[in-house]
Amino acid sequence: MSSAVETGPVDVVDIDDPADARLDDFRDLNSVDRRPDLPTGKGLVIAEGVLVVQRMLASRFRPRALLGTDRRLGELRADLEGLGAPYYRVSAEVMADVVGFHLNRGVLASASRAAELTVPQVIENAATIAVLEGVNDHENLGSIFRNAAGLGVGAVVFGSGCADPLYRRAVRVSMGHALLVPFARATQWPQELNLLRNNGFQLVAMTPDPGAHTLAQAIGESAGRRVAILVGAEGPGLAEHTMRACDVRARIPMSRGTDSLNVATAAALAFYERDRLAP
Amino acid sequence: MSSAVETGPVDVVDIDDPADARLDDFRDLNSVDRRPDLPTGKGLVIAEGVLVVQRMLASRFRPRALLGTDRRLGELRADLEGLGAPYYRVSAEVMADVVGFHLNRGVLASASRAAELTVPQVIENAATIAVLEGVNDHENLGSIFRNAAGLGVGAVVFGSGCADPLYRRAVRVSMGHALLVPFARATQWPQELNLLRNNGFQLVAMTPDPGAHTLAQAIGESAGRRVAILVGAEGPGLAEHTMRACDVRARIPMSRGTDSLNVATAAALAFYERDRLAP
Repeated sequence: MSSAVETGPVDVVDIDDPADARLDDFRDLNSVDRRPDLPTGKGLVIAEGVLVVQRMLASRFRPRALLGTDRRLGELRADLEGLGAPYYRVSAEVMADVVGFHLNRGVLASASRAAELTVPQVIENAATIAVLEGVNDHENLGSIFRNAAGLGVGAVVFGSGCADPLYRRAVRVSMGHALLVPFARATQWPQELNLLRNNGFQLVAMTPDPGAHTLAQAIGESAGRRVAILVGAEGPGLAEHTMRACDVRARIPMSRGTDSLNVATAAALAFYERDRLAP
Repeated sequence: MSSAVETGPVDVVDIDDPADARLDDFRDLNSVDRRPDLPTGKGLVIAEGVLVVQRMLASRFRPRALLGTDRRLGELRADLEGLGAPYYRVSAEVMADVVGFHLNRGVLASASRAAELTVPQVIENAATIAVLEGVNDHENLGSIFRNAAGLGVGAVVFGSGCADPLYRRAVRVSMGHALLVPFARATQWPQELNLLRNNGFQLVAMTPDPGAHTLAQAIGESAGRRVAILVGAEGPGLAEHTMRACDVRARIPMSRGTDSLNVATAAALAFYERDRLAP
């Protein structure tokens, strides 16, 4: 049984059959939608929880459907007015049945993938950008977007070997900022670094190399300029040919007997140092 | 079938029966040893992987047994000489059978819990300490220890509501630094902050409050003094009565439209700022 109830300008649809085909965007999320970037995936972007759904609503990813409890509808109603996408209102039990696990956050939104942006588009108004190479962990990727949003980084550029920032876990860990901070993939890597340089960016390569400048020195030297902060995967770091294409190498001063920090933490420290000194 | 093989000074014991009772420290880790701090837990500390096992060997937690493949024995042999604890050498298949899942890292060590340290003991030689309240997520806790070790923090003090830093996941995420950075639990909270103040610590409370000093101002004012950096749980942050017991409130300058950073990231920025300015 299902019935459509129009409540004000929000298109609320009550559903109590978990097999209802209208809920297919949200079905078996852990197994079906693991890799939305692959041909086997549905190519959907999924936002989880009130805050992340609100950020999706503010982003270039337009929700095509929402699934959630009545309580979350109450919290989101004002944001959903005039959206033109249905809110499938279900019980927590139906929701768990559809999604395949109990979802504490109580609401999901699905969106199609928006067209990819280009590097020239995303860097246009950014004084500081992050450039990632080999960051293939969704959680680290999500953290980097969250840190970028909080610490004044205007765009993210992907070199080779990075994971998909629109994967559900990345979106969740980013607190939705993967939908808001513009990102683009380099078409030629690392040659496209020249494009950044030609646009006035000082290229700062993060490295554990004790012979590098300290982060404070490297960022300090870039004051008044546009800055691109490059980070590589934990462990291998940036590839040597990428390092060579940069203007300056920067290290975080570390205590003896320790190795590198988590890549998202290292990026946060660089973003912070830049934000602290930015004009 | 099992046989004991003495190879040099390392006590290597080959075992091919996953039911062998000598492997009980490592059995069904995901279910049995979830909460080693509870009476139902075994009270064991588990180190995973060569690097973390090496850090356990350097810590006050003495391994009582190791379980691992021949390959990891080769990597660890020099470290294990004269240890006096057995290395149970098994195949990857037996290891997975005992542990309950496939363990990529290929080696585990178990240790009994060492006696807890006291707050006066852990702060004795520390110029900078971290004080945590309500950090009840093992991953965040592990990250904080990793960041503390890398960024010059000498000790961690737990106020109320924190998770167990010796839980397996916390130890793993900390890269073993939860075993090395000394920690202690406050016996009276937040009254014990007075003990820190009486020992010359400036108490810096991290907060998202836009009316607080910036991190750079707050830490800058503390130059030349001992500093305690207090962080609370993501979301609620420090309790108001804890805030009031501190000397200065510090905020990380954040971009508009964003909320707080992850608690371990916020702590890392404070540690970094302090380390940068430390005498």
